Amino acid sequence: MSLTSHPDRLLPADPGTRAVARRLHHAVRDLPIISPHGHVDPRLLLDDAPFTDPVSLFVQPDHYVTRLLHAGGVPLNDLGIGAGPLPQAHARQVWRLLCGRWDLFRGTPVRYWLETALSDVFGISDRPGTGNADDLYDRIATRLAQDSHRPRAMLDRFGIEFLATTDDPADDLTAHAALAEAGLRARIVPTFRPDRYLETAAPGWADTVKRLGAVADTDIGQYHGFLAALENRRRHFIAHGAVSTDHSHADAAAEPLPLAEAARIYARALSGEVLKAEATAFRRHMILEMARMSCEDGLVMTLHPAIARNHHPPTFDRFGPDTGHDIPTQVEFTRALRPLLTRFGTHPGFHLVLFTTDPTVYSREIAPLASFYPSVYAGVPWWFLDNPSEIRAFQRSVTEIAGFSRLSGFIDDTRAFLSIPARHDMARRLDAGHLAELVVAHRLDEDEALDTLTSLVSAQPRKVFKL
Amino acid sequence: MSLTSHPDRLLPADPGTRAVARRLHHAVRDLPIISPHGHVDPRLLLDDAPFTDPVSLFVQPDHYVTRLLHAGGVPLNDLGIGAGPLPQAHARQVWRLLCGRWDLFRGTPVRYWLETALSDVFGISDRPGTGNADDLYDRIATRLAQDSHRPRAMLDRFGIEFLATTDDPADDLTAHAALAEAGLRARIVPTFRPDRYLETAAPGWADTVKRLGAVADTDIGQYHGFLAALENRRRHFIAHGAVSTDHSHADAAAEPLPLAEAARIYARALSGEVLKAEATAFRRHMILEMARMSCEDGLVMTLHPAIARNHHPPTFDRFGPDTGHDIPTQVEFTRALRPLLTRFGTHPGFHLVLFTTDPTVYSREIAPLASFYPSVYAGVPWWFLDNPSEIRAFQRSVTEIAGFSRLSGFIDDTRAFLSIPARHDMARRLDAGHLAELVVAHRLDEDEALDTLTSLVSAQPRKVFKL
Amino acid sequence: MSLTSHPDRLLPADPGTRAVARRLHHAVRDLPIISPHGHVDPRLLLDDAPFTDPVSLFVQPDHYVTRLLHAGGVPLNDLGIGAGPLPQAHARQVWRLLCGRWDLFRGTPVRYWLETALSDVFGISDRPGTGNADDLYDRIATRLAQDSHRPRAMLDRFGIEFLATTDDPADDLTAHAALAEAGLRARIVPTFRPDRYLETAAPGWADTVKRLGAVADTDIGQYHGFLAALENRRRHFIAHGAVSTDHSHADAAAEPLPLAEAARIYARALSGEVLKAEATAFRRHMILEMARMSCEDGLVMTLHPAIARNHHPPTFDRFGPDTGHDIPTQVEFTRALRPLLTRFGTHPGFHLVLFTTDPTVYSREIAPLASFYPSVYAGVPWWFLDNPSEIRAFQRSVTEIAGFSRLSGFIDDTRAFLSIPARHDMARRLDAGHLAELVVAHRLDEDEALDTLTSLVSAQPRKVFKL
Repeated sequence: MSLTSHPDRLLPADPGTRAVARRLHHAVRDLPIISPHGHVDPRLLLDDAPFTDPVSLFVQPDHYVTRLLHAGGVPLNDLGIGAGPLPQAHARQVWRLLCGRWDLFRGTPVRYWLETALSDVFGISDRPGTGNADDLYDRIATRLAQDSHRPRAMLDRFGIEFLATTDDPADDLTAHAALAEAGLRARIVPTFRPDRYLETAAPGWADTVKRLGAVADTDIGQYHGFLAALENRRRHFIAHGAVSTDHSHADAAAEPLPLAEAARIYARALSGEVLKAEATAFRRHMILEMARMSCEDGLVMTLHPAIARNHHPPTFDRFGPDTGHDIPTQVEFTRALRPLLTRFGTHPGFHLVLFTTDPTVYSREIAPLASFYPSVYAGVPWWFLDNPSEIRAFQRSVTEIAGFSRLSGFIDDTRAFLSIPARHDMARRLDAGHLAELVVAHRLDEDEALDTLTSLVSAQPRKVFKL
Repeated sequence: MSLTSHPDRLLPADPGTRAVARRLHHAVRDLPIISPHGHVDPRLLLDDAPFTDPVSLFVQPDHYVTRLLHAGGVPLNDLGIGAGPLPQAHARQVWRLLCGRWDLFRGTPVRYWLETALSDVFGISDRPGTGNADDLYDRIATRLAQDSHRPRAMLDRFGIEFLATTDDPADDLTAHAALAEAGLRARIVPTFRPDRYLETAAPGWADTVKRLGAVADTDIGQYHGFLAALENRRRHFIAHGAVSTDHSHADAAAEPLPLAEAARIYARALSGEVLKAEATAFRRHMILEMARMSCEDGLVMTLHPAIARNHHPPTFDRFGPDTGHDIPTQVEFTRALRPLLTRFGTHPGFHLVLFTTDPTVYSREIAPLASFYPSVYAGVPWWFLDNPSEIRAFQRSVTEIAGFSRLSGFIDDTRAFLSIPARHDMARRLDAGHLAELVVAHRLDEDEALDTLTSLVSAQPRKVFKL
Repeated sequence: MSLTSHPDRLLPADPGTRAVARRLHHAVRDLPIISPHGHVDPRLLLDDAPFTDPVSLFVQPDHYVTRLLHAGGVPLNDLGIGAGPLPQAHARQVWRLLCGRWDLFRGTPVRYWLETALSDVFGISDRPGTGNADDLYDRIATRLAQDSHRPRAMLDRFGIEFLATTDDPADDLTAHAALAEAGLRARIVPTFRPDRYLETAAPGWADTVKRLGAVADTDIGQYHGFLAALENRRRHFIAHGAVSTDHSHADAAAEPLPLAEAARIYARALSGEVLKAEATAFRRHMILEMARMSCEDGLVMTLHPAIARNHHPPTFDRFGPDTGHDIPTQVEFTRALRPLLTRFGTHPGFHLVLFTTDPTVYSREIAPLASFYPSVYAGVPWWFLDNPSEIRAFQRSVTEIAGFSRLSGFIDDTRAFLSIPARHDMARRLDAGHLAELVVAHRLDEDEALDTLTSLVSAQPRKVFKL
């Protein structure tokens, strides 16, 4: 009935392969964590306030956890979604729900991350269940009250060296500025996420853009001013350490419009009359502009398109976005990105990292593109695909076409602060296992495997994200 | 040259993992079989007549077998397809063809099921071939003439506890009624399969619906009467033990029509003037209505869309449907099901099981949907995908996103009566192997693995299909 | 730091499975090579001139190698692409680039093929790198100057028994005719590749067709003459030993046009006025005609559709086609091939081999089609998919649906002459490993596995390609 945090976890079953994997993993286990894309709130680290309770730490911010409980029949309302800090009685109740449905997480990486955090951060060694829920709650709560378990202390203990957050272009980045002065060992930088400024048909778009213009101190009354405002904010982000932009739209298309047509649609959008087809054309045009700006200012561009956001409108209406029902759809990159790559695919220093929640494109499109274009990198499995079986499939299918040098390095992409070290360790174990298999199949010597693994953990993300 | 029916068959190769898998499999090996979806003819069990010969048992009803022989160059005519009971000389000839081409089945699950039946039911231990075809024929025929090998005796010997057939809504279900009185240990229930009533452009549709109206004693002259007739027949099925409805159309779309538009198309269809686009819109509307009825009457709804039926028209014209050339096409669930799930996705007690012959949707669409919506379950690999490699891929990709609690439990979906226990045993072995891998990778304790496997075999199908 | 050319390379890790795989591989290791599809230039063997240097052998003709170097930041120009024979100083420079970036190839089959050739053909046992690049260059160059390393000698040493090239229908095939007289042990035959004659909207199409008419001594002024010219050239190819035709277009569609419409579009195309939609319709019609001709003249038809050719126009403009940026797109076979298979799917002797660079169709479409139609064979993984992980996935997903008898047998599809034996050996090792897994899982007896493997290497390609 114990939590499983075995030293050999996730390593290959075959004893000979496992021995090689163990040596490889051991060599990188304690290397610093580089996290070039994620969703931790910078204010968490700026305030450095103690976490109030286990639920605000493990449940409320993590739609991986709440999604599976919801599927298991627990209403989101019972989990305190959207309720902010819970009164202790309610928090205990939610915690009991989590422990009581521990079986729902069997086989998932969520369980692995939760276990690792419980074990490594809180010293818990018994499996959560109805019987020990209150005891676990108390033990975690006690630790959370200690200075050793405040956010900055954990940041250090986790060995995080670089952490990118995800931010609105209109954000003034004062939190990041303050953090830069705070003497942390880790570098905390923003990421430029302009999605909503590019979707001109979205409700409230014109007001959003007006606020952007105000923040950028730029007249956005015409299209060229809109571009200038975006360029201005990118510079602001770069000045605060940003290394990348992040984009997620309904598809991956990048199609140029004539300048006059772009300006015309922009004007219509400002007046609130844009048609859906025009808005789509404008957004696809803007993706090209974003690539152009990246060529000019050096920000790495990451794409992860084709998610049907807020699939269940009643849940969205009641609980808002990011509540577990963004559902992937099929994606296409080869044709969609051709105009962009024709222009910028061999531009010196341009980096384009392709993420997907549709694994069919790994071997069909992403690996072939990344194996020709010096600018294109294959993003590691993302979101729904961040689990051992998909990661293993990705490793094999992408590296056998494009080699290891075209991978993005690991990305944790998480809102769950405590899952960061567990996620990176999972990646290191799976990479070690994959490389050990190549060694045992006599496809790679062990010194090469070790060099490759070290690179995946350190040099590769630094190179791809220009750290 | 022996048939391979080894106790460790299908278990993982690694000795450590195999040992765990063996223990797990042993614990569930003899649990009763629950078969909530299949194609056994209820009259087979009602009549309980001896099978006439090995060919009517193993070849004629099984398009898996005849398909591979056909691909190997054997005309369907030579196999007695569509010919009904064969004269013994012809049946022997067909049996010789099967044994003589035994190599065609290497690597397929068909071979595994045939072997298991030959070995376990008929005590045959030598590999079929040209040399022993007649001897095997005689040995099987001898057994078939014994009471111990009549359908009901085999039903008992197989440990089948629940068996759903697939039936036309106009079926009077007298066979099921008689079986309910027959004192069988197993429960034999019908499944409501309304496909052809929803395809208004299909030849003969109006007559089909008129017969439905007559059986339901309902005036189907207008749309509301059509709905009433369907609701009436669902009640009739429920009264005879039905637990689910089954749907297979060209796509998974569910799109509402305004009532007046649905009524208008229905009227046009009755008069034989419906356009193809109208028929498609009506069918998509009716899928939504079927979900609405399920919310009201509790029948579980199963979908398995996107098969190009009767791909080879000359074969269809000569031999009819279900003759091995229904070919899968790509499917899409995320957008297609959004209107349905917006309305009914969190309806208490609604169950929607998604099957597919396009495995690309498992991790991209089905698992994400099933990991949020309490109503959605991931159907196990189906039809062309019911083989060890696809089942293993399914287990990994779905459970690592959605856990084990979102699986349908095993479905055999077969017309081949003797393959039922072999199919369920294959699933148990593969589940045991998968869970053993999780144990050996220290992702799950063995007690949890055992609990999960037992649940997959027993509790999960009972819960999903409301038994 | 040694090259890894271990006797157990690529075999399964589990010791028990590896032992079976080793026995199986040993039995077929030295069987002759049958290569029914590839891109070796027949003049290479006709002239039998020594290779001038390591770069003209290993780098310039192999877009697998140059693609990965290009992605790694090496301009194609620096690699001598399109430059023809290089001055020794430049060739040495290119060779140093290759050796210096040896890490780029880790995990890829390219590395495996290069290593095997370096080790087996040139006796090199140290890993390429900056330090030994010049030494390796000299050692290879020395060998290349010896008679033992001229093309024909290598053809013999490799055990190649049958080698198909890929040729333009207007080719006079004098090289093949001369080779037939040259007393080689191997049979070198052409393959009919009519793609550009079927794309009526391509620039220069009318002139291309006029040349075809001239070569065929046929008036191609009207559609029926065009057909006659193609039939004439097919006969010419057959007279020179051709066994197959090869087709690669934007999709797999085959749709008949009325004769008058085909003739009308043809006439418009000759006059240079064809519309894009007309050209597509004509090409789809012609694929059907090609199948019809195959039924009449017996040539095996191979399809590998859905590649976006020359994805990066600036590279194409400067360096021409086949320079590493043909990128796969999604493909569809089920609906696309229905008209073709309705007509010819059960035609006696018709063989249609389906290749793909979109692995999602293996289990969804290709295996189901090949498991019913006697004419359809599943082509082995091709191009971007010719690596161990995709080959393993293919083996499992196709054979578990369609068995082993529906596979094409191995195809090397290469321009890199020295990679031919390495590619075939890789396939034999992977097939041995796959079959060993079936043996260890007690799904196949070892005698059957051996028979299957031998057939895959010898009987199956002979049967599928009618050798």
